[in-house]
Amino acid sequence: MKLQSGLKPRGVEDKTSLDRLQFFSDAVFAVAITLLALDIRLPPAAAELSEPELQRALVGLWPKYFAYVLSFLTIGLFWLGHHRKFRLIRRYDGTLLRINLLLLMVVAFVPFVTSLLSEARNGTSVRFYAATMMTVAILAWATSAWAAHRGRLTSPDKDGLRISPLESVAVASIFGLSILISFWSVEWAMLSWILIFPANRLASIVDR
Amino acid sequence: MKLQSGLKPRGVEDKTSLDRLQFFSDAVFAVAITLLALDIRLPPAAAELSEPELQRALVGLWPKYFAYVLSFLTIGLFWLGHHRKFRLIRRYDGTLLRINLLLLMVVAFVPFVTSLLSEARNGTSVRFYAATMMTVAILAWATSAWAAHRGRLTSPDKDGLRISPLESVAVASIFGLSILISFWSVEWAMLSWILIFPANRLASIVDR
Amino acid sequence: MKLQSGLKPRGVEDKTSLDRLQFFSDAVFAVAITLLALDIRLPPAAAELSEPELQRALVGLWPKYFAYVLSFLTIGLFWLGHHRKFRLIRRYDGTLLRINLLLLMVVAFVPFVTSLLSEARNGTSVRFYAATMMTVAILAWATSAWAAHRGRLTSPDKDGLRISPLESVAVASIFGLSILISFWSVEWAMLSWILIFPANRLASIVDR
Amino acid sequence: MKLQSGLKPRGVEDKTSLDRLQFFSDAVFAVAITLLALDIRLPPAAAELSEPELQRALVGLWPKYFAYVLSFLTIGLFWLGHHRKFRLIRRYDGTLLRINLLLLMVVAFVPFVTSLLSEARNGTSVRFYAATMMTVAILAWATSAWAAHRGRLTSPDKDGLRISPLESVAVASIFGLSILISFWSVEWAMLSWILIFPANRLASIVDR
Repeated sequence: MKLQSGLKPRGVEDKTSLDRLQFFSDAVFAVAITLLALDIRLPPAAAELSEPELQRALVGLWPKYFAYVLSFLTIGLFWLGHHRKFRLIRRYDGTLLRINLLLLMVVAFVPFVTSLLSEARNGTSVRFYAATMMTVAILAWATSAWAAHRGRLTSPDKDGLRISPLESVAVASIFGLSILISFWSVEWAMLSWILIFPANRLASIVDR
Repeated sequence: MKLQSGLKPRGVEDKTSLDRLQFFSDAVFAVAITLLALDIRLPPAAAELSEPELQRALVGLWPKYFAYVLSFLTIGLFWLGHHRKFRLIRRYDGTLLRINLLLLMVVAFVPFVTSLLSEARNGTSVRFYAATMMTVAILAWATSAWAAHRGRLTSPDKDGLRISPLESVAVASIFGLSILISFWSVEWAMLSWILIFPANRLASIVDR
Repeated sequence: MKLQSGLKPRGVEDKTSLDRLQFFSDAVFAVAITLLALDIRLPPAAAELSEPELQRALVGLWPKYFAYVLSFLTIGLFWLGHHRKFRLIRRYDGTLLRINLLLLMVVAFVPFVTSLLSEARNGTSVRFYAATMMTVAILAWATSAWAAHRGRLTSPDKDGLRISPLESVAVASIFGLSILISFWSVEWAMLSWILIFPANRLASIVDR
Repeated sequence: MKLQSGLKPRGVEDKTSLDRLQFFSDAVFAVAITLLALDIRLPPAAAELSEPELQRALVGLWPKYFAYVLSFLTIGLFWLGHHRKFRLIRRYDGTLLRINLLLLMVVAFVPFVTSLLSEARNGTSVRFYAATMMTVAILAWATSAWAAHRGRLTSPDKDGLRISPLESVAVASIFGLSILISFWSVEWAMLSWILIFPANRLASIVDR
């Protein structure tokens, strides 16, 4: 084990501790992503509805389904990015732990903004949602920037693999742009979020 | 570590990352399965009820218990299948990650359809429930089909062990058939679901 | 890896899979134990209460605190027992997986009976609670009985360590007895539950 | 594996079991920390609000955001401390398991006191919150005191690394002092909690 010091390489190299950090992060991601579904609630007095009424009620829940799928896939992509980054991180220090904690704090907040978006699709809720997701992306970028700067916490001998900030920057930009677009059109702002999926695909090709 | 390329074997071979993928999946399964019980709620004003009233109220919750046991065991079997498959998967690629994410998205949706089924046992809710479970089974099949196709992501030296699509196909068929049956009889559709338990038993014998 | 066969030792010996089984079980235990606290709810309109009213309301929540502490420690002990048993289990088979799944199903049900007990401390709820906990203990006993029978799934070379059914049997008996006692006195039935703590202490001395 | 005995070193040395203990603890921390966000609820009838009304309602949720951030970061720091301590623990015994269980019980209670604090910021709720956090810190101190006393459960050959009680004692003192301050001023009591962040920073420098 190497102690944190002024010398390089910085950070503590301890497989078990790093595993535990990833594990804790995975657990927060997993709980947050699963809690999203708690916001999809049955229509009140579902037991008393006739079948056609129940069908209409279930169809009428589409904003809930939409927000669920959107947030699940977006958090899922953030998790894939976290997973991809941490493959290359071999050491950690207090700063990495702290940035990661902030990242998890915003991820755990996503179920709330998802609920907001499913209730009201106006400028306010779209901007609140996009700002939250942009913050996750910025913190994901900060994680990789901190870890990868001059190989601070990464392993040098990884066949030229490197942590690319590309995906985080792209996703942050898309959500940032959508905030601007939302002042003109809420619908186009939400449509623009679809771009995060090709952005992730591209990043996974470049980053490998 | 082998990079994703046109050459075989495809995919990234990285024990820690694969562990993390399984871990994340396990956590989503575990949270979803445990959240099922949140739908079993006490009768309102339980504290004011007389003992015979409380007994009747607890017995009257049987649709909740039934839906809980059904969904717990079904998700449990899906988890066992996931567990069995991933024993043989030794590499992963982006496609596997994405199919798995979709699988988890539908698994995390199961508490909602369970709640629906416990409120109303009519054609609409039975079909919604069966369609959700069928989707899980199809995505479970897609995982193994992708991983096992020409040994893409599996290990060749495993004493002839192979990933069989048998269980997923059987479970998907049972839930698919139950959708058809439900147009004739909702009760028989629900009864037909019992068949997934011998199907799993059979698959665990064939798959070993 | 050894395949399931008629020969001894039975079961599959696969460290990663066994880890995953323990992990999934741990996650269900952890989620169930943490969800217990969700039942402790603030008095309605807590924001409008005066300070003395708030104090009285918080003190008035004692049945919630009591049920929380009782169930947390009891599930905690079950987890410790699970942990102690699985230290000695080195292989698994389908039956172990299935018994374990049933065990988790009842563990995930504990938040409901805890909520019931905190609402009403009469014979009905005490018996429902005790019967649930007794079922957990019986399934815990079944796990160890299956695994340890003629060393089916345990490791022989463990310095004479053995899985003892003692604790599970003791805990099942205590909860079983409390059901009988509850027909005479609900208070004494609940008091008798305290015995599970020395029983666990004793088992941890004998089992080591 | 060394059995618990009168001889030193005490405790069981079993990497897998110790991993599982950390894992279970991590999962409880992760679920508790993620459940905090469930208390941030949308204003009722959010869908019917005009945009300015929705904006005011979202801004009006600031006590919820404040309590969320405070508790998330505080539990996060406790987790970091747990993580730091367990790096140095190499064996465990029944007492460690029991203290850890009590620690988790109080951690899982934090969402309730967070909810209380977000509803009412008066002396009662501030003292209840501070007392809960102080209890977590005391139990964290007890964990390290038990493990580190004469190297009972720690590894001797760790480059002079040692478990320091400093952080836990500092955090317990800060929350204890804030209880006293709250009788004079609730606002200053809450402000004093900010001190736990430099205390953690300091501890991470001393403890390394």
